[in-house]
Amino acid sequence: MSQPAFKNPEPATGNNLYLRALRGEPLPAPPVWLMRQAGRYLPEYLAVREQHSFLEVCHTPELACEVTLQPIRRFHFDVSILFSDILVPLVPMGAELSFGAGHGPQIANPVRSAADVAALRSIEPRESLKTVLEAIRLIRRELPDDVALVGFAGAPFTLSSYLVEGGKPEPFAQLKSLMYQDPAAFMMLQHKLGEMVTATLTAMVEAGADAVQLFDTWAGILSQAEYRHFCLPTLQQIFQQLQEQRIPTTYFARNGFHLLEAVGETGANVQSLDWRIPLTTARTVLGEDAVLQGNLDPTVLLGDESTIRREVRRVLTEGGGRNHIFNLGHGILPLTPIASVEILLSEIREGSK
Amino acid sequence: MSQPAFKNPEPATGNNLYLRALRGEPLPAPPVWLMRQAGRYLPEYLAVREQHSFLEVCHTPELACEVTLQPIRRFHFDVSILFSDILVPLVPMGAELSFGAGHGPQIANPVRSAADVAALRSIEPRESLKTVLEAIRLIRRELPDDVALVGFAGAPFTLSSYLVEGGKPEPFAQLKSLMYQDPAAFMMLQHKLGEMVTATLTAMVEAGADAVQLFDTWAGILSQAEYRHFCLPTLQQIFQQLQEQRIPTTYFARNGFHLLEAVGETGANVQSLDWRIPLTTARTVLGEDAVLQGNLDPTVLLGDESTIRREVRRVLTEGGGRNHIFNLGHGILPLTPIASVEILLSEIREGSK
Repeated sequence: MSQPAFKNPEPATGNNLYLRALRGEPLPAPPVWLMRQAGRYLPEYLAVREQHSFLEVCHTPELACEVTLQPIRRFHFDVSILFSDILVPLVPMGAELSFGAGHGPQIANPVRSAADVAALRSIEPRESLKTVLEAIRLIRRELPDDVALVGFAGAPFTLSSYLVEGGKPEPFAQLKSLMYQDPAAFMMLQHKLGEMVTATLTAMVEAGADAVQLFDTWAGILSQAEYRHFCLPTLQQIFQQLQEQRIPTTYFARNGFHLLEAVGETGANVQSLDWRIPLTTARTVLGEDAVLQGNLDPTVLLGDESTIRREVRRVLTEGGGRNHIFNLGHGILPLTPIASVEILLSEIREGSK
Repeated sequence: MSQPAFKNPEPATGNNLYLRALRGEPLPAPPVWLMRQAGRYLPEYLAVREQHSFLEVCHTPELACEVTLQPIRRFHFDVSILFSDILVPLVPMGAELSFGAGHGPQIANPVRSAADVAALRSIEPRESLKTVLEAIRLIRRELPDDVALVGFAGAPFTLSSYLVEGGKPEPFAQLKSLMYQDPAAFMMLQHKLGEMVTATLTAMVEAGADAVQLFDTWAGILSQAEYRHFCLPTLQQIFQQLQEQRIPTTYFARNGFHLLEAVGETGANVQSLDWRIPLTTARTVLGEDAVLQGNLDPTVLLGDESTIRREVRRVLTEGGGRNHIFNLGHGILPLTPIASVEILLSEIREGSK
């Protein structure tokens, strides 16, 4: 493992582009980072993963710090996001989690009944997630002060989809069975997960994160009526509690075009959008002052230089030069060439000069 | 294999509820069928599959006829849909297709370049799809005359996603690479597939199908701008050519809420909608006279009786009692209890009396 290229003991200053964008300041160019920016498209990440399993990296603060910093060293993104997984906090709650090679997460003891929900433990993140919080402290010390550090968690609905299905959730048969056959147990599960999420995100900020993001990967499988009924109350509670602590929040409901109106009622400061929702359309629904994050289609980075520049410019134009954090509409793909990321950054940082 | 319970040599008459709904007639109750109604939730289907592989059933007219008729005998749906697979016509075009146990379709020779596209053969369905067309003739002979028979094909974009990826298409990296790096080859592929689709659907109607449906399972991964550019021209050509032959057409763009405006320009007679788009919203976008098919969430059928009845009534109400064909918003799930389908039918057929 190579030595980080910079040392800085201070939290991100008010000068950080991302935090300034969160405050709605007009900026010369939007802040930029990429979902899954620490990942398999980077040879230095693959080198670490040759020696260590995914969960080993998550739970070893030095390794989590190293892979979190890799994309910052290479690209100097404006935002660094903790390297971890949304399923990690489910383990102290009682989930028997493993990541098998090539077949994604597995939970050996899925939650299928009110009794299973009741058996899930409440957690105190300062006790149960020590390795994760230590990684945050380490990353914050090593990060340049113009780079913001973002902590994250999975949204309760998305977490419950893994918990109930026992792994990859599609086609959500067990989850929807529980939802429709025992809605009280389902809502209790949302509530318990909501409490864990609030406590975890709060502890991450105490440890040094500047802001937090909530990932709702699977919200898009619900109709808006179901989303309002089963998800929105818990989300509103989470964001209200974080708001009271003045923690800046972002919410990402993947594939959520049909949910957008309700998504606007969650109370998150920033809405992160996938590539299917034009930013201009989102502003029409969410209001002209909405702070938006996104939303370049990650597959565009597999295209040639002129395609990448054209699509980046389109997203910049739709972002409108204000209240916009540049990101992808979904995680960066493992096949992405490094050169494509460099083209993206040059178009944002130099193209806009 | 059991003997079909009825014999009728005539095509569906004008009395068929489905064909009447296609003509926009007011009806006492909407016609009803379920996507994947011949499938793994039926014990009689599982019994056939214990003896025969999936592709064997597709290519043996007597077996395809038997499993197509199974749900009609049990539930007397208003529509019967040919048992086959959208990938079947890709084989005579040159694809080396197999269905491995548990890991979905595999194409051993994926299409990755302009040369690969050029090498795909044009087909004459009357020669290349004899077993499929023979199955249609057999089914039409065995079906009661108040049950319509629907033929189907995959939409070119969806077919190309399997062809280019070589199997399950997510996350569409190869497909989007081709789309952005060689758009001319990509459009040539759409065009070739479009010609195959038009010829296949026409031949299905000649063999006895009363109407056809085009499945665009993966269209929803595109933004509306991409969809308009890469998909819409080919779709318009297909539907125009079928229209000229007075073939009734349905188009199903799964997860296509963000595409709905463009979907309305395809020229299909009926839009089949997934469960995420309220039918009322779709009518606002597509026009009050649009004929809609759908869109009960298939997971609702895993719920209890009161949930099923409530959600079926909601879809009936949103359908507005006219220009509506009742269906699911996606294929019926293998775990669905038979009793749930019976409750659904009783709510539609008796609830509306």
